[in-house]
Amino acid sequence: MSWELTAADLPDLARGATLLGTGGGGDPYIGKMLVEQVLGTRSITILDPDELADDLFVIPTAQMGAPTVMIEKIPAGFEPTLALRTLEEHLGRQADATMPIECGGINSMIPLLVAAETGLPVVDADGMGRAFPELSMETFAVYGVHGSPLALAGERGERVIIDTGDDDRQMEWLARGIAIRLGGVAHIAEYAMSGAEVKRTAVPRTISMALALGRAIRLAREAHTSPFDAIEATLSTTLYSHVRELFVGKVSDVERRTTDGFAKGRAVISPLDPATHDRFEIAFQNENLVARLNGEVVTIVPDLICVVDHETAEPITTEGLRYGQRVRVLGISTPAMMRTPAALQAFGPTAFGLSEPFAPVEGEVAAAEAASRFTSPAPGAGTNQGARI
Amino acid sequence: MSWELTAADLPDLARGATLLGTGGGGDPYIGKMLVEQVLGTRSITILDPDELADDLFVIPTAQMGAPTVMIEKIPAGFEPTLALRTLEEHLGRQADATMPIECGGINSMIPLLVAAETGLPVVDADGMGRAFPELSMETFAVYGVHGSPLALAGERGERVIIDTGDDDRQMEWLARGIAIRLGGVAHIAEYAMSGAEVKRTAVPRTISMALALGRAIRLAREAHTSPFDAIEATLSTTLYSHVRELFVGKVSDVERRTTDGFAKGRAVISPLDPATHDRFEIAFQNENLVARLNGEVVTIVPDLICVVDHETAEPITTEGLRYGQRVRVLGISTPAMMRTPAALQAFGPTAFGLSEPFAPVEGEVAAAEAASRFTSPAPGAGTNQGARI
Repeated sequence: MSWELTAADLPDLARGATLLGTGGGGDPYIGKMLVEQVLGTRSITILDPDELADDLFVIPTAQMGAPTVMIEKIPAGFEPTLALRTLEEHLGRQADATMPIECGGINSMIPLLVAAETGLPVVDADGMGRAFPELSMETFAVYGVHGSPLALAGERGERVIIDTGDDDRQMEWLARGIAIRLGGVAHIAEYAMSGAEVKRTAVPRTISMALALGRAIRLAREAHTSPFDAIEATLSTTLYSHVRELFVGKVSDVERRTTDGFAKGRAVISPLDPATHDRFEIAFQNENLVARLNGEVVTIVPDLICVVDHETAEPITTEGLRYGQRVRVLGISTPAMMRTPAALQAFGPTAFGLSEPFAPVEGEVAAAEAASRFTSPAPGAGTNQGARI
Repeated sequence: MSWELTAADLPDLARGATLLGTGGGGDPYIGKMLVEQVLGTRSITILDPDELADDLFVIPTAQMGAPTVMIEKIPAGFEPTLALRTLEEHLGRQADATMPIECGGINSMIPLLVAAETGLPVVDADGMGRAFPELSMETFAVYGVHGSPLALAGERGERVIIDTGDDDRQMEWLARGIAIRLGGVAHIAEYAMSGAEVKRTAVPRTISMALALGRAIRLAREAHTSPFDAIEATLSTTLYSHVRELFVGKVSDVERRTTDGFAKGRAVISPLDPATHDRFEIAFQNENLVARLNGEVVTIVPDLICVVDHETAEPITTEGLRYGQRVRVLGISTPAMMRTPAALQAFGPTAFGLSEPFAPVEGEVAAAEAASRFTSPAPGAGTNQGARI
């Protein structure tokens, strides 16, 4: 069922989207401010993906760049809509709706900004089911919808169109080159597709899931109950049904560099009890990629590795990691459509140069059960119903 | 008067264009081969700029990249025409003719390749009057025609459109980013303009001048007369009327690095007579930028600094400079339209970060006389008539 989103929903959505950002995706705070400013007291129609007309024309919109740059370089605000209009003009067709390409981080907000400016509805789905650092890491691409042509807009009104046919990695490579030359951040419209293609290729109801997560965390805090139980309860009936506490400790080392247009590095988390000698380490490229306990992988992409505050469960991004922070690290399972061989080729460990194979955070037995329920990414194959607000 | 160019003209044109490349512009050899292959026994119509209809629609075509890369990375051949077609599609208008943006080096050949493939005529004019390293360094831009939208094509069929409005330096910056990510070379269509705009902003008859120069050098060699006298005689009645021998010596040191998408460096030329201690040095960014004798500027951009073989006058590019080569260095004056304050701002010494002011190679008195004959870059303000073949 479609529903209306208002400015009052934005803080919860931002919190949930930061959790799904798995350390990256860019801090949604600035995006939230921009949406609030443009939206005022109006609302945005959020379309349920199962209910889309097959011939609906959807143009997703997003921000791209290194999160370390995003928090310092504020968009003028008109860029995402300029990217959408540029792609519409190039294709000779107007969009009926926009959609996130990425439900984690700031990209939960960018389509809402476009919606607030244009009056377009937003489809409750995305192509990453979390955050990933590259434009080619999309379920859209995995299941046959390609990103080209992509339109990109800069803060001085620059407009770029990139068409690499069905080569989405080359599209990412060229668009990244432009984003770097625009100062590290750009806004884009890409993966234009029909309603039928959304139903076939998108991860469904990830906006509502992010909103439900953020809301559950807030309500638990207000009720002085455990926000970790709330996270687990919220996810239990979604496509992201397994949550595992990977480690509790304090941040004892962070290495972070902004290079090649990405924020790359690693964080070491040490036990709270100095008598134990466990070493927990997370490697990241914008997003957290792999978590190792004493050198053994405990969670690896595309499963989610989420660092949150030890008590409040407030999600912490890689650029927000600081020495001495007390944190919990959660591992969260991804939907079956994100774990197929084709999906793992696009955004599994080897796509990031990691030598370890993918291993589901919930263990092999539970994963096999989940996969047996997944036949194709068609409507009905898991519906995130529990997350519907 | 329009004329027909055949494959038999290409070796002379390549030689003359290499001279006008002032060390850069890319070796035209590979471009010449590509044109020969496609053209066969047909001919290409070369349009005299003064005779263009005001509403003729001209789309210039070119290669961009570091000459050091260009000689190793051979184009597939279809890219320049793909760039033209991409811009036509974007603008919704078909070109009536193509034109060089740069008459020096390989960019003397790229519009001919497009002409051979499409049957379009080529306008006998360009926007640099020599070679320059950046896309914004155009008389077109100086006199009010901007490069955007630019279309760029890669060897795997990649297509990119860049529109930075009237900011040609930002267009260069973004296009260079794409060219670097395509391996250092790309093909482009840009500065689309009307026949009236060609007449107002282009350096006229530079294709015929390059052809006349290359032919004069060859004929002098065949007749065992001085090719240097032939160069001087050919240029004497053109807009490039002053030639000065700056130095004779042998190459004793070359520093060259390919960085930021350019070939940058310097060459030292030592006297042939070891008893003299003159030190002659040339600094280059793709093209030769400034020549200094014992630390004093003797020629500086936009005037031409051409290194040629000591005996045959064969032009030597910066990537062709080798230790021990015996060379002559010629300084050649540029047309008055390339020396106005606006022109010097676009491609004079400060545009390259040089601290020395522009000083005409022929001396201030002769330059003042030439400038007094130049009122505007309108038709009739110098016509390169002597170079017409």
